[in-house]
Amino acid sequence: MRKTIIGVMGPGDGVSQKIKDSAYLLGELIAKNNWIVLNGGRNVGVMDAVSHGAKNAGGFVLGILPTEQSVIASDALDIAVLTGIGDARNNINVLTADIIVACGMNPGTASEVALALKIQKPIILLECDRVTVEFFQKMSTSMLSMLSIASSAEEAVQQIKKILTK
Amino acid sequence: MRKTIIGVMGPGDGVSQKIKDSAYLLGELIAKNNWIVLNGGRNVGVMDAVSHGAKNAGGFVLGILPTEQSVIASDALDIAVLTGIGDARNNINVLTADIIVACGMNPGTASEVALALKIQKPIILLECDRVTVEFFQKMSTSMLSMLSIASSAEEAVQQIKKILTK
Amino acid sequence: MRKTIIGVMGPGDGVSQKIKDSAYLLGELIAKNNWIVLNGGRNVGVMDAVSHGAKNAGGFVLGILPTEQSVIASDALDIAVLTGIGDARNNINVLTADIIVACGMNPGTASEVALALKIQKPIILLECDRVTVEFFQKMSTSMLSMLSIASSAEEAVQQIKKILTK
Amino acid sequence: MRKTIIGVMGPGDGVSQKIKDSAYLLGELIAKNNWIVLNGGRNVGVMDAVSHGAKNAGGFVLGILPTEQSVIASDALDIAVLTGIGDARNNINVLTADIIVACGMNPGTASEVALALKIQKPIILLECDRVTVEFFQKMSTSMLSMLSIASSAEEAVQQIKKILTK
Repeated sequence: MRKTIIGVMGPGDGVSQKIKDSAYLLGELIAKNNWIVLNGGRNVGVMDAVSHGAKNAGGFVLGILPTEQSVIASDALDIAVLTGIGDARNNINVLTADIIVACGMNPGTASEVALALKIQKPIILLECDRVTVEFFQKMSTSMLSMLSIASSAEEAVQQIKKILTK
Repeated sequence: MRKTIIGVMGPGDGVSQKIKDSAYLLGELIAKNNWIVLNGGRNVGVMDAVSHGAKNAGGFVLGILPTEQSVIASDALDIAVLTGIGDARNNINVLTADIIVACGMNPGTASEVALALKIQKPIILLECDRVTVEFFQKMSTSMLSMLSIASSAEEAVQQIKKILTK
Repeated sequence: MRKTIIGVMGPGDGVSQKIKDSAYLLGELIAKNNWIVLNGGRNVGVMDAVSHGAKNAGGFVLGILPTEQSVIASDALDIAVLTGIGDARNNINVLTADIIVACGMNPGTASEVALALKIQKPIILLECDRVTVEFFQKMSTSMLSMLSIASSAEEAVQQIKKILTK
Repeated sequence: MRKTIIGVMGPGDGVSQKIKDSAYLLGELIAKNNWIVLNGGRNVGVMDAVSHGAKNAGGFVLGILPTEQSVIASDALDIAVLTGIGDARNNINVLTADIIVACGMNPGTASEVALALKIQKPIILLECDRVTVEFFQKMSTSMLSMLSIASSAEEAVQQIKKILTK
């Protein structure tokens, strides 16, 4: 039987230590719940942090890379899917994950949250500022999408559990 | 020599008459300036309105469709590129257009604006509310992207001209 | 009304002058028939030759590029669609063209002929050797696909006309 | 550390029992060697057979689906990557696998072998007829690609081992 896949999206470059720490902890907690971590697969920022967190807790990490080769892959991935389709792979992340957690925000992550809203995929916003929350909450209301806000990795995991048992 | 391509992105379904009127007028003005209109190609909402506006003014319309077949294509397209890659085609819209105008806002359009910000493609927001403007302006600042706000189709075209002569 | 699109596929690199001459002539003939030429858009080999041939005869050329930027685009394109999806764009070529002509053969072209056979898109093989013809003819029979062999650009155009009037 | 991924490509529909038996056995042998099986993920033909073979031997199966949803997924997959990009996903199969085995032949599989030849990915042809072998061997020679022919699943696995130890 296929395992539950939690997509953790977030900035690659220029991300604060606080956000990387959240991503690492989130990776650990996802692994402890026996869910697979999906992310963009690169060896930087939130992608690398959540991968190493999951790996550290014995989890399984699926990286969906934009590139044709694995040069930029995090060394904590179990599987590197090499899409070769650039930022178009963001839609594969959204389609493949059962739930999306945005940990921090930048344009790439915003495109993934938007695409997830479009197909009513459950979304959790973590480490996002007021403007981001306001923008996506308004949009989720008009789309009847499931969007929640988490103030910590622990709370995000509580929300994942709640969504999965629905 | 290749012509300038203006991408006009906007909601397909559930869009107001006011926004469709703006899109139609924008299509006419783009055509009168001898630029090609690029859009998502469907026969609904902003896509259909901007295509018919451009067609009415003798313009050329390039639709980039998510589907494998042209059943849902606007009948005002000159060329229907059938991508068959679903919402992943949003990134093709952004890459192919020289400038992006978002006319109205929904998740699909938000993903396109976000992807455009990521690659520093010039963006003009038309018919967007305060929350949307605030969200993308903040993001464009941190990305050093070129984002402007237009209060009418005419103003959007003025801004396009300004960008093209830079 | 949308115009007919003829996809001309063929090797980019290492292609003989004979094949490039066929591609150039084919481009001219397609343009004279008022059909749009679609190709992979690069500035080499069959792609560049067919684009320049069409351009020389006043035609319209649509290039579907694998890249995110237009650096490698033929200067004879009217529109460069920048897909950014690498070789996955081969399927867009096949979906978007009404008829496919393979002019010469290499792995990229073979993938396009195979994808066209899969969806029963009409295919014409030009400048292909015996082994290639035998392989695809056998496959087309089992797929009930429409495959014909042309011994010159002129003959290919005759076959296109026959297919279009069906 | 990432595990070795063996891509097994082959027809979905209308495939003989003999070919399905080869695919099943190949799946078992790949699993016993502790390699991951990658395939197109559908619940038919070679895809389903190799997935069940691998599963039966305790292996791990990665399905890369063309669809946005998992309705057509084999129930023997551990992970279903939902690409939503249709046949364009064939290139992701080729990029992601370390070695490609074609088990049987049809247009979809031919496109994958061709794309693999293009990027010099090692390929093994199993259950392929004379014409197919002749076509791809000729093409591999001109591409300096690594192509070998196997007469059984066991022999294919011997060839995989040889390639991996190079």
